[in-house]
Amino acid sequence: MTFELTILGATSATPIVDKHPTAQVVNYNDQLYLIDCGEGTQVQLLRYDLRFNRINHIFISHLHGDHYLGLMGLLSSMHLQKRTNPIHLYAPKGLDEILLAHFRYSHSVLHYPLFFHSFDDEESVLLMENEDITVHTIPMHHGITCCGFLFREKPKKLNINKEKLPPNLPIPLILALKEGEDIFFEGKYIHNQELTLSPKPLRAYAYCSDTKYTERMIHLLKEVDLLYHEATFTEDLANKIDEGTYHSTAKQAAKIAKKSNAKKLIIGHFSVRYGDLNILLAEAKEVFFHTVLAIEGQTYPISDE
Amino acid sequence: MTFELTILGATSATPIVDKHPTAQVVNYNDQLYLIDCGEGTQVQLLRYDLRFNRINHIFISHLHGDHYLGLMGLLSSMHLQKRTNPIHLYAPKGLDEILLAHFRYSHSVLHYPLFFHSFDDEESVLLMENEDITVHTIPMHHGITCCGFLFREKPKKLNINKEKLPPNLPIPLILALKEGEDIFFEGKYIHNQELTLSPKPLRAYAYCSDTKYTERMIHLLKEVDLLYHEATFTEDLANKIDEGTYHSTAKQAAKIAKKSNAKKLIIGHFSVRYGDLNILLAEAKEVFFHTVLAIEGQTYPISDE
Repeated sequence: MTFELTILGATSATPIVDKHPTAQVVNYNDQLYLIDCGEGTQVQLLRYDLRFNRINHIFISHLHGDHYLGLMGLLSSMHLQKRTNPIHLYAPKGLDEILLAHFRYSHSVLHYPLFFHSFDDEESVLLMENEDITVHTIPMHHGITCCGFLFREKPKKLNINKEKLPPNLPIPLILALKEGEDIFFEGKYIHNQELTLSPKPLRAYAYCSDTKYTERMIHLLKEVDLLYHEATFTEDLANKIDEGTYHSTAKQAAKIAKKSNAKKLIIGHFSVRYGDLNILLAEAKEVFFHTVLAIEGQTYPISDE
Repeated sequence: MTFELTILGATSATPIVDKHPTAQVVNYNDQLYLIDCGEGTQVQLLRYDLRFNRINHIFISHLHGDHYLGLMGLLSSMHLQKRTNPIHLYAPKGLDEILLAHFRYSHSVLHYPLFFHSFDDEESVLLMENEDITVHTIPMHHGITCCGFLFREKPKKLNINKEKLPPNLPIPLILALKEGEDIFFEGKYIHNQELTLSPKPLRAYAYCSDTKYTERMIHLLKEVDLLYHEATFTEDLANKIDEGTYHSTAKQAAKIAKKSNAKKLIIGHFSVRYGDLNILLAEAKEVFFHTVLAIEGQTYPISDE
């Protein structure tokens, strides 16, 4: 099953030519989950051939413009494309009011149902669940309501070890084995593990949006395969962070990765002051070696391999 | 005095890679006047080195997303740049409500005053006037409140014909001549024209935003030096226009230019279906020869020369 992350934008709020504010796409088995939607996201989706009609769920971490100002354009374009499948939108309260004003004054009546699911950042909640994954909020600390998102793969049916399978085993018992049950066959009790292959480890991706350094969410991030964490500044600007920007340094992002025992860290939301991002990467790697930069257009596997 | 137009975007609503929706800048004597502000406009301004702090007036023709969705990002970036000079924003009613919702939920209190001036499309009104220019609305016909904008140069003080000036003429009389007055000097009545150079013709630019073909505005466009008119479709799609898209063909744009006796026509707001825009240009030129395409990043003089 494909489980991967594509970065569409990874700069912070100040605009810059040929770079984009935050937006990324989780692909699970060709279903696309859009996370944040800064200005220009719809064109970035086109640029990297990620088709709008494969997106059914959109997650907006918070209502600073660089994380959602591309949403109205994208929703309007889906309307122009005559989409009929529903969109589920998960965001802090208020975005519904902004969208309604936009649609009212542009006289737009969407061709498709738009379901709005609001959340706050008091505690982690389950936002959505389907047969593949669950998505929970990860409360941040950013001055306004702000959450990251935790994507966890759900257990799959077990694969049968065909080499060991008795040739005359009835189908209902095979299905029971795939569900993880032990069986009783021809007078013998057979443990499930004897006839099935070990399940693959369940994979997880955690997106930590804009936030001041906080350990409040670490228990949610334990052992994730891939952790995205914002890393706006280098350490020499840490005092700026204390002055109320509610952002993190690269080193702080790495500390979170280390403390949560993540397998891999990807840093983003870079201040435009850094022409060369390797200074941020180096600072993070000092604390957590398995760190990479979020690069626009690049796709990262979500797995331990 | 510089008087020129720079195109930042000229596609219609459907997003496309490496092209941008409507936005353009009138430069009059290094003061920049932003007309419409589709998604991505702030980056286009950066790309063509048009500095945000030279913009004091922003004109939004109507509230379809492809004409204003870049505005919130631009206003937010001006705030991040610690701008203190006022912005005057001219737009149909409703944009104020959208902006207020955006600022409220992002907890933004702008560093600079933002003055909102609303208009409707009942009749042409004066929106602003300074020592250089006047700007009037040009009512369109687009299904929702929509206006274009007419920029007219104001008369300047006259230039003195130094070769003919009596050497002992007192300064108050010179100033009177520059204001266009006749004078009485050393017992002689002198007509203004004897001592001043002919004033340069006053230049004008008309921006006709999204509209169905309509002649209601032609009296406003008489003799303008440069006329921008939307030209979304070719003639073979004219029937589509009748089905309620409220747009024009290239040929219809040219008809407006011809009937208003404009000096030059620039067409834009192209449907993305046209890979080669020359088909639109050719159709317009059949009716009005002095037609050019709106090309992103290109600057067009506003003059008869």
